[in-house]
Amino acid sequence: MTITTPLTRMLGVRHPILLAAMDLVADARLTQVVSEAGGFGILGGGYGDAAWLGRELPKLVEARAASPFRFGVGFITWGLARQPELLDLALAAKPDAVWLSFGDPEPFAGKIKAAGARLICQVQSVEMARDAVAKGADIIVAQGAEAGGHAASRGTFALVPAVVDAVADRAIVVAAGGVADGRGLAAALMLGAQGVVLGTRLYASLEAAGHDAAKERIVAASGDDTVRGLIFDISRQNVWPAPFTGRCLVNAHAERWIGREIALMQAIATEAPRYQAAREAGDFDIAAVIAGEAAALVHEVLPAATIVAGMVEKAEALLANGQGGSFSFGAG
Amino acid sequence: MTITTPLTRMLGVRHPILLAAMDLVADARLTQVVSEAGGFGILGGGYGDAAWLGRELPKLVEARAASPFRFGVGFITWGLARQPELLDLALAAKPDAVWLSFGDPEPFAGKIKAAGARLICQVQSVEMARDAVAKGADIIVAQGAEAGGHAASRGTFALVPAVVDAVADRAIVVAAGGVADGRGLAAALMLGAQGVVLGTRLYASLEAAGHDAAKERIVAASGDDTVRGLIFDISRQNVWPAPFTGRCLVNAHAERWIGREIALMQAIATEAPRYQAAREAGDFDIAAVIAGEAAALVHEVLPAATIVAGMVEKAEALLANGQGGSFSFGAG
Repeated sequence: MTITTPLTRMLGVRHPILLAAMDLVADARLTQVVSEAGGFGILGGGYGDAAWLGRELPKLVEARAASPFRFGVGFITWGLARQPELLDLALAAKPDAVWLSFGDPEPFAGKIKAAGARLICQVQSVEMARDAVAKGADIIVAQGAEAGGHAASRGTFALVPAVVDAVADRAIVVAAGGVADGRGLAAALMLGAQGVVLGTRLYASLEAAGHDAAKERIVAASGDDTVRGLIFDISRQNVWPAPFTGRCLVNAHAERWIGREIALMQAIATEAPRYQAAREAGDFDIAAVIAGEAAALVHEVLPAATIVAGMVEKAEALLANGQGGSFSFGAG
Repeated sequence: MTITTPLTRMLGVRHPILLAAMDLVADARLTQVVSEAGGFGILGGGYGDAAWLGRELPKLVEARAASPFRFGVGFITWGLARQPELLDLALAAKPDAVWLSFGDPEPFAGKIKAAGARLICQVQSVEMARDAVAKGADIIVAQGAEAGGHAASRGTFALVPAVVDAVADRAIVVAAGGVADGRGLAAALMLGAQGVVLGTRLYASLEAAGHDAAKERIVAASGDDTVRGLIFDISRQNVWPAPFTGRCLVNAHAERWIGREIALMQAIATEAPRYQAAREAGDFDIAAVIAGEAAALVHEVLPAATIVAGMVEKAEALLANGQGGSFSFGAG
């Protein structure tokens, strides 16, 4: 039994599961492990750091030469716009796809497609989805507000089918935000998506390039204890334009400043260095653990391959429940 | 082919679809029509209005005597707490369930269950779900932030499975917020829910007790144009306690005041009467149309029975897709 979708066929992968291009967290190791497990790993290029890309990309190229797998490279689009030469660096590694999120994909779409890579655009509204498809996106990631890190306000559950209705005749739609297990994969398929993006769940994997203390906080979180807002953006002096805000786990720093954003800005001369020091020290009472509401569904740090395999197995079992011709859900 | 779940068995209905107990909108007519279509209609008792209940409840009792169907009565819990005698009025109609949302169900749980009715508690977090089950809830509605009207911040997609994990051994879990069609029903079942609640979709039904102009605005909305906040609560001088805020369609009044809540409060002496007059006149440039992100998926005002039947048919078709033993989604 296998779940195949236009996404698995387009990307040439076994499972319709994409690694979220998490800045700093989705490094070459995690990308490779997810791809080798049958998903589609996407290197988290983030704002664009030539040194980091120059270190991580060759690892993927070398590993792929030894034993082939597919992978992508992701960027925050307006970060890439400031250093467009980084796209050439990425494309030189011959990725199977480039992921762009937050910003206008138009200046990059032609070059990406000319290089033979698929263009994945992450969007947060129906209007953005239409725009990205008009500019050449092959795959649209409809990202709901449940997601960790930056996103906008629409929830995954109604956003995904609305994006499907708007663009599925011209692009493949994938769901992001709140997906952490086989239930989420099966549900996303029912909503009309062709696959899912996993962020928070794969952050809490053995191979993710994150602090162990951050992973443990994700495991401990109930899901009620994340918050979307501007606190970590203000604290690191990098406030994103509307409609984007950031979701993280609630910690002492967030509790101190939520609702007092103006006061935080007024205190930034002392708070910014304090925040930066905490990030470097892995002090997550102050530094934000960037995670989504899917943290509710993460109870253990696991190998990424175990996460992918478990998710597929559960989704297949749920979907198979329809086989009797009468659908009976639940034990009651 | 039928979808049966513990919810359909507990409530004695054909389809796992509940009418949201929408204040003013879910009147006796809509309740009856949804129930007769095989769903479970719930009269929207709201804050509690003895005159309205005294008018609507007898219609249901009379119709049921002529041709049996099941139904519930819903209240905003803290409204009921101010007029606890209204519960006796509701229970005298012998409803099959009482729906309580927003507030502590404990003072009412015993009486409801002693009357032979099921207790449905709508919750907005895992913690609230645990609390409601401890107090006797038979059915937990996990309501995501996508919902129209009052709700909290967690999105449906990750909230539902988290609530299932927390309480499904002791109660039936139903999904609310962002559900409008068969895709949503099928997805909710995959997330572990045993059914769904329909609000916005049934607001835009022929039988709902709302202004036609409001229904037409729901039809016209793209789903990107709703907003969750305090504007309509401030405007009608009824600000709810945290963590509850209200979602409505964006209109001129919302655009004028969003982000300027303090200024709206300072202008309330003129804005409150203006808002009240607009409500009475059905002027929805000022008065809020209380609707959720599911508005994206509503393209036509339809008879409620058509909505219920279409939803079930679509969900069954989606679930049947697993019958071949290989799951292939999408036409690509």
